Amino acid sequence: MDMLVAMPHEYETALSTHDEKSITVRDKDLSSDIMGEMDFGGAVYLLLTGEEPSEGEQQLTNAMLSSLMVHGTTPHAVASRLTYLSEPESIQGAVASGLLGVGSRFAGAMEECSRELQEITAGDDTQTEIEKLVADYREREDRFSGIGHPHLNPVDPRAEKLFQLADEADIAGVHVETLHELQAAFEKETGYDLPINVTGAIAAVSADMGLPPKGARGFAIISRAAGLVAEILEEDESPVAMNIWQFVDGEMKFKKS
Amino acid sequence: MDMLVAMPHEYETALSTHDEKSITVRDKDLSSDIMGEMDFGGAVYLLLTGEEPSEGEQQLTNAMLSSLMVHGTTPHAVASRLTYLSEPESIQGAVASGLLGVGSRFAGAMEECSRELQEITAGDDTQTEIEKLVADYREREDRFSGIGHPHLNPVDPRAEKLFQLADEADIAGVHVETLHELQAAFEKETGYDLPINVTGAIAAVSADMGLPPKGARGFAIISRAAGLVAEILEEDESPVAMNIWQFVDGEMKFKKS
Amino acid sequence: MDMLVAMPHEYETALSTHDEKSITVRDKDLSSDIMGEMDFGGAVYLLLTGEEPSEGEQQLTNAMLSSLMVHGTTPHAVASRLTYLSEPESIQGAVASGLLGVGSRFAGAMEECSRELQEITAGDDTQTEIEKLVADYREREDRFSGIGHPHLNPVDPRAEKLFQLADEADIAGVHVETLHELQAAFEKETGYDLPINVTGAIAAVSADMGLPPKGARGFAIISRAAGLVAEILEEDESPVAMNIWQFVDGEMKFKKS
Amino acid sequence: MDMLVAMPHEYETALSTHDEKSITVRDKDLSSDIMGEMDFGGAVYLLLTGEEPSEGEQQLTNAMLSSLMVHGTTPHAVASRLTYLSEPESIQGAVASGLLGVGSRFAGAMEECSRELQEITAGDDTQTEIEKLVADYREREDRFSGIGHPHLNPVDPRAEKLFQLADEADIAGVHVETLHELQAAFEKETGYDLPINVTGAIAAVSADMGLPPKGARGFAIISRAAGLVAEILEEDESPVAMNIWQFVDGEMKFKKS
Repeated sequence: MDMLVAMPHEYETALSTHDEKSITVRDKDLSSDIMGEMDFGGAVYLLLTGEEPSEGEQQLTNAMLSSLMVHGTTPHAVASRLTYLSEPESIQGAVASGLLGVGSRFAGAMEECSRELQEITAGDDTQTEIEKLVADYREREDRFSGIGHPHLNPVDPRAEKLFQLADEADIAGVHVETLHELQAAFEKETGYDLPINVTGAIAAVSADMGLPPKGARGFAIISRAAGLVAEILEEDESPVAMNIWQFVDGEMKFKKS
Repeated sequence: MDMLVAMPHEYETALSTHDEKSITVRDKDLSSDIMGEMDFGGAVYLLLTGEEPSEGEQQLTNAMLSSLMVHGTTPHAVASRLTYLSEPESIQGAVASGLLGVGSRFAGAMEECSRELQEITAGDDTQTEIEKLVADYREREDRFSGIGHPHLNPVDPRAEKLFQLADEADIAGVHVETLHELQAAFEKETGYDLPINVTGAIAAVSADMGLPPKGARGFAIISRAAGLVAEILEEDESPVAMNIWQFVDGEMKFKKS
Repeated sequence: MDMLVAMPHEYETALSTHDEKSITVRDKDLSSDIMGEMDFGGAVYLLLTGEEPSEGEQQLTNAMLSSLMVHGTTPHAVASRLTYLSEPESIQGAVASGLLGVGSRFAGAMEECSRELQEITAGDDTQTEIEKLVADYREREDRFSGIGHPHLNPVDPRAEKLFQLADEADIAGVHVETLHELQAAFEKETGYDLPINVTGAIAAVSADMGLPPKGARGFAIISRAAGLVAEILEEDESPVAMNIWQFVDGEMKFKKS
Repeated sequence: MDMLVAMPHEYETALSTHDEKSITVRDKDLSSDIMGEMDFGGAVYLLLTGEEPSEGEQQLTNAMLSSLMVHGTTPHAVASRLTYLSEPESIQGAVASGLLGVGSRFAGAMEECSRELQEITAGDDTQTEIEKLVADYREREDRFSGIGHPHLNPVDPRAEKLFQLADEADIAGVHVETLHELQAAFEKETGYDLPINVTGAIAAVSADMGLPPKGARGFAIISRAAGLVAEILEEDESPVAMNIWQFVDGEMKFKKS
């Protein structure tokens, strides 16, 4: 590959640059325009979108980021604590171990949900698309990740709050609307009351903010990172990981191959 | 291990619990007391410390979280983008790949710095401890991570801003003071002007907030998680990872063993 | 969840157990039946399948594991080295950082390929399934991961060797055959000579060994883990990561949002 | 940084190169000299050291790699399974999640052990160094990771086997000898029978092979990668992760901050 030459114009970023005096984030000076001037929700909105947030966008971003930090003792929390038990020198390793589970089943499903919502709203005929989606899920015996919750019932109060904030800030738009239509369609189809959950709300609200599906899961990653840092600090004070491991290893019954 | 029985009282957490109606974070209701009521900096402070933040603590936490999101194109950013190139399905995998480098050399050194500051201030004679630390670093030809910066000079404006906010909020205490004494001692010893950098400032300020050393690195992990989410969203829009890989593989000269 | 009680019979494993004298892996004693008695390929085969390998299965497993350790300087290698630059204390963190990219595009695509082969051969009419797959890929303008290679041409010698070993050991079966039929169909459709690559060969051979699709990617993970350990040991002796980072950060052009 | 130019001579590797016909690993052709010609232990030895292994080195490497794959249900296994529960699409993410715990306390301590052994043997007076190390550990009330085992007693049969193979292959040297002297010193100091464990044996044997301390942990990483792949394949067949999570979340008692 001797002829492969660096093509500087192909290495471009709009996120950040730096010189001897300052660090620039998007079009702002980090230490004078962001730190002390915006809260973290605002800084994240700016960094992800390249646009200065309105007060409502800032508040909504803060609320989304706060909503998924912790939720009882999650699989992510247990994974992080067990990894920390084995390697107490590396908090970032323990946090990463748990973050890897911000996945399609638990904590990360807003990506798929946002993708579905964005595909439906991009189509010509929303109502037909909704019917098709509901039929598809029923046929595959799959659960639409943004609707229904194993224990929060009849509503997921986190979703309610996000919709309320999105309404007040005039952000709620076609994706929030479509998600409610989907809810109605699934309820009609199944005969059950099915709450929109926080996963669905983040998907819809972030889509109405203009973020791509991966951005929706991005909020969950940042949020859960904070939760997992807290799990590790607590594990230092009040350890449970050794107990968990000993319990599991002790209960596990060996069966012959 | 048949006799190993679960001891429920040893499984305790103060972080979170949940029932059919709500999720509790510390002593607050997540959806009514935190979402829409606190910004994310406040929520993180509450979660990590168990205490409701003052306005100043909230603002300072937001500023720390915003300070390390991005800084040009970091090693973490490149690692995340290359992992994403290979596995575009898993944004959490790509983010985790980069977060693993929030380490002792780049982005995570505030943990060690906070540990040193907390050890000095816990001792009987701060001045003697400072002299000993400076002598130790000189003997090992090591660099104290909180002081000095390869390109920001004469000051790291992020550190300046954090100290200003900590002063205004009346948070700056013995750890901030000790760090400035260390700076003076290193400058005297070396004859150079050495700025306190953002790593040192986060270490000192978070220690004055009562956080343990791992909490200091925890802020960096949460902050950089946001930056790495942004890198992945940008990689989708304006990719550089393939270019980087091809450049490196092309430049790499093979030498015989 | 007060009524949730542990159900010991639901915690079962056939992989391993241990007591004060020994460790059992599948139905064998680790230190007397495996260590010194089998090579690592054999031990991996035993562990993954629960069956003692024939000599041919052992040799083929060793060859698959050896085939993907390194391949020039891969994206995985660069990610691992950059993470190690930032956190030199944790070799497992650096290796994990790179392993996260054993993904659908580079190094991990044998999972999808094995899934396609196993679906085709499970169908009633292999020939129709093959035609359908080729048409689907053409319509989506997608590349079937097991066929074709960006620089190895006209053959991928690793694939050739795996097929030869599988033939000699009488392991090659319906999945290897189907992959060759797919190759012919893609060549006919496109008019190009398209080699079966190592990804395809591992997919087909591991499927003929009875392994599920995830097992195929599992071989790549183990293999690449060895390669990434080697990258880190070399980075200690002959570092390139700082150079790579400085190059990228220096070349990156900042554009306004 | 416009003047920063690529300096090709600073990008060097002895691990691998590739062209249109072949892939080279160290000084050998991957598909004709390694695959089918060496087992995986041999390939790993070659890749890590740059030297062709003797039969004994090959056998010993295979035995080390086989020794740490599984050991009952480890913290690593539980972390991987819980991550897989949350993200079933990414086996490499689940494996990485568990590998992050190949740490200083469980599964990765041979690095520190090898470092101690290499420092002792590099000194002028081995006996004095041994006495100093024993005194240091006693003062710190720390446990030397290579000696003693919580449940394997009076011997760790994996260590015994590794020493036997190292003797037969004439590899055992000054590090194996020093470890036995350390064992005697700790036994004398404590009055207990203390077995050398597999961690110590891998540290000593790999050091006698000429590998650096990180190479010792490297063997554990590769070995455990295989074990974690097996855990994920079994989780698909016979799941326990949901049970573990529900148990832990159900048992966890919430206490007020």
